[in-house]
Amino acid sequence: MPRNTTTTTTRYDDDDDRVWDCGAWFEYILVVVVSSILLIAASVLTIFWVIYYRRGFNMDDPKLQFNLHPVLMVGGYITLSGFSILLYRICRCCSHLIVKLCHTFFHACSIPCIVIGFLAVWDSHNQTQTPNFYSLHSWLGCITMGLFALQFVLGFFSFLILLCCENATYKFRSTMVPIHASFGVATFMLAVATAVTGLTQKAHFELGESYQQTIEEGIIINSIGVVLTGLGIIIPFAVRRSNSPANCKVYVTERI
Amino acid sequence: MPRNTTTTTTRYDDDDDRVWDCGAWFEYILVVVVSSILLIAASVLTIFWVIYYRRGFNMDDPKLQFNLHPVLMVGGYITLSGFSILLYRICRCCSHLIVKLCHTFFHACSIPCIVIGFLAVWDSHNQTQTPNFYSLHSWLGCITMGLFALQFVLGFFSFLILLCCENATYKFRSTMVPIHASFGVATFMLAVATAVTGLTQKAHFELGESYQQTIEEGIIINSIGVVLTGLGIIIPFAVRRSNSPANCKVYVTERI
Repeated sequence: MPRNTTTTTTRYDDDDDRVWDCGAWFEYILVVVVSSILLIAASVLTIFWVIYYRRGFNMDDPKLQFNLHPVLMVGGYITLSGFSILLYRICRCCSHLIVKLCHTFFHACSIPCIVIGFLAVWDSHNQTQTPNFYSLHSWLGCITMGLFALQFVLGFFSFLILLCCENATYKFRSTMVPIHASFGVATFMLAVATAVTGLTQKAHFELGESYQQTIEEGIIINSIGVVLTGLGIIIPFAVRRSNSPANCKVYVTERI
Repeated sequence: MPRNTTTTTTRYDDDDDRVWDCGAWFEYILVVVVSSILLIAASVLTIFWVIYYRRGFNMDDPKLQFNLHPVLMVGGYITLSGFSILLYRICRCCSHLIVKLCHTFFHACSIPCIVIGFLAVWDSHNQTQTPNFYSLHSWLGCITMGLFALQFVLGFFSFLILLCCENATYKFRSTMVPIHASFGVATFMLAVATAVTGLTQKAHFELGESYQQTIEEGIIINSIGVVLTGLGIIIPFAVRRSNSPANCKVYVTERI
């Protein structure tokens, strides 16, 4: 069984030695460019929707305070977390430790967005006497927040703190990698599912019957949903797809 | 670079020789049992909801004809397709060709469910003069159907028809495996996203203001959504997680 021997002893640090053919480069550039455009588009479209159709932000008006919620949640859970995941695909030439630190930094930046985004809707609901936690959107949102927090704490502990005794913790960290990667992608997909239920809810609340007439704002809301769903397809594909030509079966998310 | 040599020449048929420890068996049984329970629960809960709260099925009443839509879509896209994906995790001891044929059979069974489920809502909307294709749910549904059809045709062609010249097509098939697996999981996640937007939409249409009072039907609808989202987490995890103890890095979805 020579494979077992090689997989347990190889530390996956020799990616850069591999020769990439034209197809691999084309796929790499395409995936990175399309993912980046969609990640930015998700936030830009949401900001545009909120400012142009929902009268922007104002902390003194609970309805306009609510508008912080979609912008910060899409910014934190989708754009920042998405770029944080995508870093593993983008950064082929950097040191792996730097990629890990950037991954942590991007996720750390998304925490204030998520916290303020949550407080904005909580406070806005309380001011307008709207109940909290009754809808599927809010249930999914709670699960997503729980998983995100768990992932952040476990990831920070396993892949940064335990590096202080690198060799002794190698086996534990290697076991954690596919678990952290799987649940990380699952959290991202959950965030997408939460966001699309939120958009559907908002469209029915705000547009009512006029949503059925395919009005401009409805198309913008649906487009945000489609961009988010596109991200739900391309981000897991980008990070799962081999970082090398097709005959080398080493996945990006196998790296420790 | 001994790994490249081994990965390109190994056909991944020697899984059964590996010795599984207690932890690997525990994880295998847990993942398979929990996934199966959730896959069945999704359909059972949807049928219960439709019969108990939405007055069941009747082809002469467009509102009750609509009820076929959630039942058949969850049955086809989630339960049947989910089991079809999960087969790659369940069947460790069967011949790989038999697993592939069962995977195709389960997906083929989901096609009539999806077609009838689509026609049920189309006809029901036309009879009640409700517009089609205006909502985010319908947009996502169309993308899911397109991806599902593409995956079925490409998968059938690449992994069954091309087996007639097994050696000549080995390289092409090995390239297609991670693409088919990634897009298959993405289609499943898309189906989950479509289903949760559909549930949100239905809850707001049918329950209106009473949805905010956390009524029984609202809790059932949210529970279906949570089960579906749970499947969106566990199915990709089940099929992506190594089919072997943690130090052997061969993924189920790398099999050709």
